[in-house]
Amino acid sequence: MSFTDRVKQILSWYTSETPGTRAQLARLLTTGELAGTGKLVILPVDQGFEHGPVRSFGPNPAGHDPLYHYQLGIDAGCNAYAAPLGALEAGAAEYAGQIPLILKLNNSDTLSKGEPCSAVTGSVDDALRLGCVGIGYTIYPGSEHRNRMYEDLRELTLEAKAKGLAVVVWSYPRGSGLSKDGETAIDVAAYAAHIACQLGAHIVKIKPPTAHIEQAEAKKVIEKAKIPVETLADRVKYCVQAAFGGRRILIFSGGAAKGTQEVLDEIRQLNAGGAFGSIVGRNAFQRPHAEGVALLKQIIGIYKG
Amino acid sequence: MSFTDRVKQILSWYTSETPGTRAQLARLLTTGELAGTGKLVILPVDQGFEHGPVRSFGPNPAGHDPLYHYQLGIDAGCNAYAAPLGALEAGAAEYAGQIPLILKLNNSDTLSKGEPCSAVTGSVDDALRLGCVGIGYTIYPGSEHRNRMYEDLRELTLEAKAKGLAVVVWSYPRGSGLSKDGETAIDVAAYAAHIACQLGAHIVKIKPPTAHIEQAEAKKVIEKAKIPVETLADRVKYCVQAAFGGRRILIFSGGAAKGTQEVLDEIRQLNAGGAFGSIVGRNAFQRPHAEGVALLKQIIGIYKG
Amino acid sequence: MSFTDRVKQILSWYTSETPGTRAQLARLLTTGELAGTGKLVILPVDQGFEHGPVRSFGPNPAGHDPLYHYQLGIDAGCNAYAAPLGALEAGAAEYAGQIPLILKLNNSDTLSKGEPCSAVTGSVDDALRLGCVGIGYTIYPGSEHRNRMYEDLRELTLEAKAKGLAVVVWSYPRGSGLSKDGETAIDVAAYAAHIACQLGAHIVKIKPPTAHIEQAEAKKVIEKAKIPVETLADRVKYCVQAAFGGRRILIFSGGAAKGTQEVLDEIRQLNAGGAFGSIVGRNAFQRPHAEGVALLKQIIGIYKG
Amino acid sequence: MSFTDRVKQILSWYTSETPGTRAQLARLLTTGELAGTGKLVILPVDQGFEHGPVRSFGPNPAGHDPLYHYQLGIDAGCNAYAAPLGALEAGAAEYAGQIPLILKLNNSDTLSKGEPCSAVTGSVDDALRLGCVGIGYTIYPGSEHRNRMYEDLRELTLEAKAKGLAVVVWSYPRGSGLSKDGETAIDVAAYAAHIACQLGAHIVKIKPPTAHIEQAEAKKVIEKAKIPVETLADRVKYCVQAAFGGRRILIFSGGAAKGTQEVLDEIRQLNAGGAFGSIVGRNAFQRPHAEGVALLKQIIGIYKG
Amino acid sequence: MSFTDRVKQILSWYTSETPGTRAQLARLLTTGELAGTGKLVILPVDQGFEHGPVRSFGPNPAGHDPLYHYQLGIDAGCNAYAAPLGALEAGAAEYAGQIPLILKLNNSDTLSKGEPCSAVTGSVDDALRLGCVGIGYTIYPGSEHRNRMYEDLRELTLEAKAKGLAVVVWSYPRGSGLSKDGETAIDVAAYAAHIACQLGAHIVKIKPPTAHIEQAEAKKVIEKAKIPVETLADRVKYCVQAAFGGRRILIFSGGAAKGTQEVLDEIRQLNAGGAFGSIVGRNAFQRPHAEGVALLKQIIGIYKG
Repeated sequence: MSFTDRVKQILSWYTSETPGTRAQLARLLTTGELAGTGKLVILPVDQGFEHGPVRSFGPNPAGHDPLYHYQLGIDAGCNAYAAPLGALEAGAAEYAGQIPLILKLNNSDTLSKGEPCSAVTGSVDDALRLGCVGIGYTIYPGSEHRNRMYEDLRELTLEAKAKGLAVVVWSYPRGSGLSKDGETAIDVAAYAAHIACQLGAHIVKIKPPTAHIEQAEAKKVIEKAKIPVETLADRVKYCVQAAFGGRRILIFSGGAAKGTQEVLDEIRQLNAGGAFGSIVGRNAFQRPHAEGVALLKQIIGIYKG
Repeated sequence: MSFTDRVKQILSWYTSETPGTRAQLARLLTTGELAGTGKLVILPVDQGFEHGPVRSFGPNPAGHDPLYHYQLGIDAGCNAYAAPLGALEAGAAEYAGQIPLILKLNNSDTLSKGEPCSAVTGSVDDALRLGCVGIGYTIYPGSEHRNRMYEDLRELTLEAKAKGLAVVVWSYPRGSGLSKDGETAIDVAAYAAHIACQLGAHIVKIKPPTAHIEQAEAKKVIEKAKIPVETLADRVKYCVQAAFGGRRILIFSGGAAKGTQEVLDEIRQLNAGGAFGSIVGRNAFQRPHAEGVALLKQIIGIYKG
Repeated sequence: MSFTDRVKQILSWYTSETPGTRAQLARLLTTGELAGTGKLVILPVDQGFEHGPVRSFGPNPAGHDPLYHYQLGIDAGCNAYAAPLGALEAGAAEYAGQIPLILKLNNSDTLSKGEPCSAVTGSVDDALRLGCVGIGYTIYPGSEHRNRMYEDLRELTLEAKAKGLAVVVWSYPRGSGLSKDGETAIDVAAYAAHIACQLGAHIVKIKPPTAHIEQAEAKKVIEKAKIPVETLADRVKYCVQAAFGGRRILIFSGGAAKGTQEVLDEIRQLNAGGAFGSIVGRNAFQRPHAEGVALLKQIIGIYKG
Repeated sequence: MSFTDRVKQILSWYTSETPGTRAQLARLLTTGELAGTGKLVILPVDQGFEHGPVRSFGPNPAGHDPLYHYQLGIDAGCNAYAAPLGALEAGAAEYAGQIPLILKLNNSDTLSKGEPCSAVTGSVDDALRLGCVGIGYTIYPGSEHRNRMYEDLRELTLEAKAKGLAVVVWSYPRGSGLSKDGETAIDVAAYAAHIACQLGAHIVKIKPPTAHIEQAEAKKVIEKAKIPVETLADRVKYCVQAAFGGRRILIFSGGAAKGTQEVLDEIRQLNAGGAFGSIVGRNAFQRPHAEGVALLKQIIGIYKG
Repeated sequence: MSFTDRVKQILSWYTSETPGTRAQLARLLTTGELAGTGKLVILPVDQGFEHGPVRSFGPNPAGHDPLYHYQLGIDAGCNAYAAPLGALEAGAAEYAGQIPLILKLNNSDTLSKGEPCSAVTGSVDDALRLGCVGIGYTIYPGSEHRNRMYEDLRELTLEAKAKGLAVVVWSYPRGSGLSKDGETAIDVAAYAAHIACQLGAHIVKIKPPTAHIEQAEAKKVIEKAKIPVETLADRVKYCVQAAFGGRRILIFSGGAAKGTQEVLDEIRQLNAGGAFGSIVGRNAFQRPHAEGVALLKQIIGIYKG
């Protein structure tokens, strides 16, 4: 297989990594409908753990079956499918080799309250035995427990890289250090992307940033340096820059389920801002299969340009 | 390569260390424009993690790209470049062997509040695989969490020394034990330098001390012993003495970005007081490249004498 | 070398220990001016860490240099020199084998407030690589954090004994459980000595006890059993008894710097009460070198009898 | 430091390695008189172990002192100095940082007979604590014990690369599988170079090949494919090709001591054939210091072109 | 304690070692009658293991008791006492601290035949718990099993140095690679000394070399280079040179029991040749106590000069 120039360019940003890790990044970039474009649409299904099955799979009960999501990702032509240990295990044998897998290594449920802190629920060795291309991990900058999360990630990252896996970090600001609006503020979103890069992530996922600015000192700089933050495309563009000047793959979550047009409009803005792609979960699997596939294909179409 | 007498003298203070560690200290002292002088100017870029990308790189957007800083350090003739894991990884392969690297092993962001405590975000093995000459670590004397930081450092230091790396400690008094003015008070700055030495650091970085005296008991001694603390040069001189009677390499941070003359005046005072050099970050990378190089070269020029 | 009867007697109290540990105790008892007498005068220099360099070394600036203290201990004929990691490292190679060393494994600074709790700043392996005869450790009975300190000590002690090192415990009652006067109360001082013995210490250091009695229940017993506590010698005698009936080496701190006569009077009382010796820091190193040596020699002279 | 195009080209062959390993290769290629040329002259002194001190150092008794060789390598401007554990330890502290070091990790003496098999006499951790740029290792293809040597090397190589060291392999065909002439036969020499590359070596050292062809099957191919093997330059050219088509650094041993003209003539042939350089031991250190330096400088001059 | 210039000079050869190891070497050089002279007389008693109790202790049955040898070493003023695990354990508690101990870590008995290869019968941790200054280890260059011995020693040495112990190597050429005369041939003895140094030994013990030359190639060099080997003093001088140009402590075994004059004559020759001292076992402990002490004192007298 010979790579497109864009894929070669992206891989050139990861030359400090082992060939194994680079090969996994290459697999992600050369699989599915977006193969070769440098864009990624990943199907993540950790909502069952994060929000409970009722909220996650009630709207489309077929989604209670983990194999449903493997098939959904394949049918839609996604680059990868990401899920926690149990869900991956449930289909990893049947679907071995059919779609790149990302093992989500930490997860949190909503049955306890308090400062957010996910539990480490899988290991790098699990990712290897399940045939994954990489590990996924969530950090909550802003939480009192951020240090524990950063430190657990450090160890997982070192091991994953040595064993030739890619590292995907979900960076979701949250916790007592931030206002509710601040969780998606443009300055905070860019900061979250940057922290994940500094922690050694190859692929970073953040939420689409709003025009809110959380930190007074950041506000001053944005105004003085005239960083445009009015449109979503503007803000995405800055976040991409914050992710090592565009040298790390930055993708965006789809957020809560919403109407098809709303989803597609947002994707168009993300694409216009230079996003490397999207992670689309609920908007895909909470629809009936055919509709979910159709929506994902429309999203993929936008990124194809 | 044969060493200058000054380099030999400095190395003679570290005879309890392994030859590997001594070789790394020698590399730091024999690289860049200040090679052989016993002085060091190091470029540190951890502000993206510590203050966020907007505040750090907004003033000079080229700095969002981690490779920018490798090149800046090389172009200016710095002795070393220090950064967190992700930023070093982003360019370690391209720039392998071109400038000594220090892996900053702990970092803190400003998205959470509370007593300061950095997370350990890298390991000694990371420093080795990235080809670093040493590890960097920040302690916050004055924080309720100081003990955890001292203890994590103890383990990293023991491992780093056994594996032939140098240990650089950023000692920044901060936290509920101190007033805001106290963070840079002369008695506290000297104390911070001394603690880092006691923890086994080879190179210690503190902030330029002010004439404020935080601790009443220290005030009495300073007056009785007539320790001069009026000028910055006086205070630097005492801090150098507090760092094991001048037998440890003590360098000073540049602090917040400011005007060129202000920076250079401060460096002249540091040099007059016997500082071993400076760590200059924001004042270098928040200017356009040519200006940043020019300023670093002027700073280097002052230390060259 | 053949030992005096007194040295043999003291060593006979430690027959449960490994020969390595006993050999280190023997080295302590057969080094310096007091060799063979069963008495010990140890030079400790952890005040730089504990009180800061200004207060510690301001009165005699030569003491900022860690090598100064090695030489002071040797010139005065002390049995050992005790210090934290960094200070020992600074001279361990130059002075290798010239004076027994005790690595102080935990330390606290005065830049934070709150319940006292030292950080563990060194390891048993550090003590071995630096060539020490033993480890030193401070506990603060009376602190809310005493259990953490006792438990850390437990692990260090087990390891130190297996590897043939001696264990020296500084037992300093302090914290919210005690009144200020109670810190040196006779009942508390004796209790502190006993706790250190119970934790497995070979050598215990306490402060000279006052006639104050902190605990009401203890007061009743002291009165009923007519335990003499009026003179310092009386109180020292009881503390020695509290340290396993005299079967553990109990030494006394010199406390804050004071006049020569005051120091020597106190030492005479300690000696009269059966103290095994003294740890004299500030009173020795805060004087000019010649005076410090002279004072230490006078103290040694008193213990020599 | 910016690298020459040739150094960049050579480093581009090692992009599967960690940045640490690449940095060490860069150091080798940018040190000494040949810095930047892509050529290497390394001083190896393991003959004391391999042939005994009488034969090795009798002709120039100053060479009994291990520090002599450090100085010789520095004075001559060599890229590196390679020796076994003890000899490196003897000077590693004094010469820390003055010349790149290669720790020879296995060695053999001539006091026993039988199939050749070197003992592993050092570890990767030794190389780190002594501050080496890489490890050296000898294999004897042709020996009954080759598998043990290949397998020990496998483990050392994996560890060395993870810890950012370079791997230099001496590949010396020897043992019951080969005739005496076969040890340096062109087909065998090329084969030996290739095996070392296959074992993961970054730098390979072989002996200058003779025109003898050991293996009948190889002879047929050489004749049929008309591979020129008549001159030493021809044969060197083929060995370079056998070392991964020229993508591995292949250097040549100088062999037994001989006359200056003979040595220089051979080097000219090696250089004409495209050798990356030479390892010159006995011919350098068995002459008086000034003559040894002069010869090394002449050799370096030839490679400089 | 301040060291003599000679002791300082010797310690300066070991600057790559940890301060702990240097302190142990200092203890060896500052204990006993030869303290400060740079000379060593060590009492080794491993003959019970090596030759059996009948041959070893039959001539002086008091020697069956391991405590006998502790006392003998002390009474004679030896620098150290060396023995296998069991013998050291038998008296380590009673004699703790009275004489430096060397734990002989491998031993061989004469109940089996075949190529010589000692078993590893103790560990570095044993040496620490018994309070030893160092470990002892025997290698048999010339044996088919030499590689196993060298490799076991490599691991013990790395650990011993990290834990602050000295390493003493008995280098006894023996085995199928050598003729009987060759075991003490001058070329072989020098080679044996050199191998032990290369393996990282701090102190090397060989047998007094004879004028026999085992290796034809060595003979040529000795003749050509006119290395004097006629007298024992000549040969000792060369062996000292072979031990890193005199930068390692080289001592000589006393060999089989013989007459007092014969022993003393040999010691005089050793001393004249620059030997650092002797290891004297059978000649000391196979005599009655008073005679053994007297002989050792005469030997010590010769080295004192």
